[in-house]
Amino acid sequence: MTEDPDRPRQRGAYAKGIARRQEILDRAIEVFAERGADRTSLRSIASAVGVTHAALTHYFGSLEELLVAVYQESTVPERQQPDTLPADASPVERMIESARTNREVPGLVQLYSTLVATALEEGRPAAREFATTRFSRLRREIAATVREQQEAGRMRQDVDADAVAALVVAASDGLQTQWLLDDSAPQHEALALLDRLLRPGSR
Amino acid sequence: MTEDPDRPRQRGAYAKGIARRQEILDRAIEVFAERGADRTSLRSIASAVGVTHAALTHYFGSLEELLVAVYQESTVPERQQPDTLPADASPVERMIESARTNREVPGLVQLYSTLVATALEEGRPAAREFATTRFSRLRREIAATVREQQEAGRMRQDVDADAVAALVVAASDGLQTQWLLDDSAPQHEALALLDRLLRPGSR
Repeated sequence: MTEDPDRPRQRGAYAKGIARRQEILDRAIEVFAERGADRTSLRSIASAVGVTHAALTHYFGSLEELLVAVYQESTVPERQQPDTLPADASPVERMIESARTNREVPGLVQLYSTLVATALEEGRPAAREFATTRFSRLRREIAATVREQQEAGRMRQDVDADAVAALVVAASDGLQTQWLLDDSAPQHEALALLDRLLRPGSR
Repeated sequence: MTEDPDRPRQRGAYAKGIARRQEILDRAIEVFAERGADRTSLRSIASAVGVTHAALTHYFGSLEELLVAVYQESTVPERQQPDTLPADASPVERMIESARTNREVPGLVQLYSTLVATALEEGRPAAREFATTRFSRLRREIAATVREQQEAGRMRQDVDADAVAALVVAASDGLQTQWLLDDSAPQHEALALLDRLLRPGSR
């Protein structure tokens, strides 16, 4: 016999591990929604989730990695409301819609801000990788939309697609923060203004 | 005698307290510049600054309040390079200059991001007061500059000054973050683009 008799059992253990990890992650998402992402420790989350500290470390490594996993799991398309955007929606309209769906998940915007702030610190590779990858992917996707809209005549031609993409992402993030702190901040007006400034023939 | 004989001594103790607080703050600024604002505790800062935990709590209350004090002290005009802006500099040019002087203080941008992320959490009144006040003051100042520039014909008339102010602050903060994470992010190009879109006759 050349087959490894342990193979099926290993595979079963692996599948069980995946399921257990997902179970912990689902519960962690609820815990974060209730208590926020900061002032917390892997130990206190383990206790709230109902697993040992060792189990949490086994599945997620560090608090930083768990936070990234919680954010990513909370923003997978299947967990979010389907968006209601027309196919020719502008980049700014897309960011407004995305900000709206993220706001519906309790604690998600706070978790995002915490992850970005953590990414700026030294020695935080998981948060940095998360934030850098997210910004880079968003800029690339938005720049592609800008080029399409420029070709279709729905966006002014004399703007660089990559600069527009970076500006739209920055404006969306920054205005969300200002509005969460103070709902008199003109988030909607400022995004509508940016949208208008980018249309052809705006003067 | 109606004069309180303790008055001069009290005043002396008060002045000494102020000086001691400033001494601790100066040293805390150095500590933050060296090790960053996160993953730290009042206890570890006390040890690095060379005071007791009780003394730090006496002068600053909490880690959150100490972080706010460090940020505010690091950004007082006397501590910064004088700016070299012409009197008619646009709001975007002013934000670029301010971002540049802040980047020269080690750890300051990271500390700012940490404070803003902290402000978004529940139960963090000092960080929230700091961030809300800062955004509100900046928007008010920039909106005033926008109105002046509109009157002087240096900015397009058909934009709302408050919306422009919120947009410029958001773009400046967000692009700084993107650039710190990845220096291929077109921070300068995006801010120059926003500046141009706001000029009269841009089309």
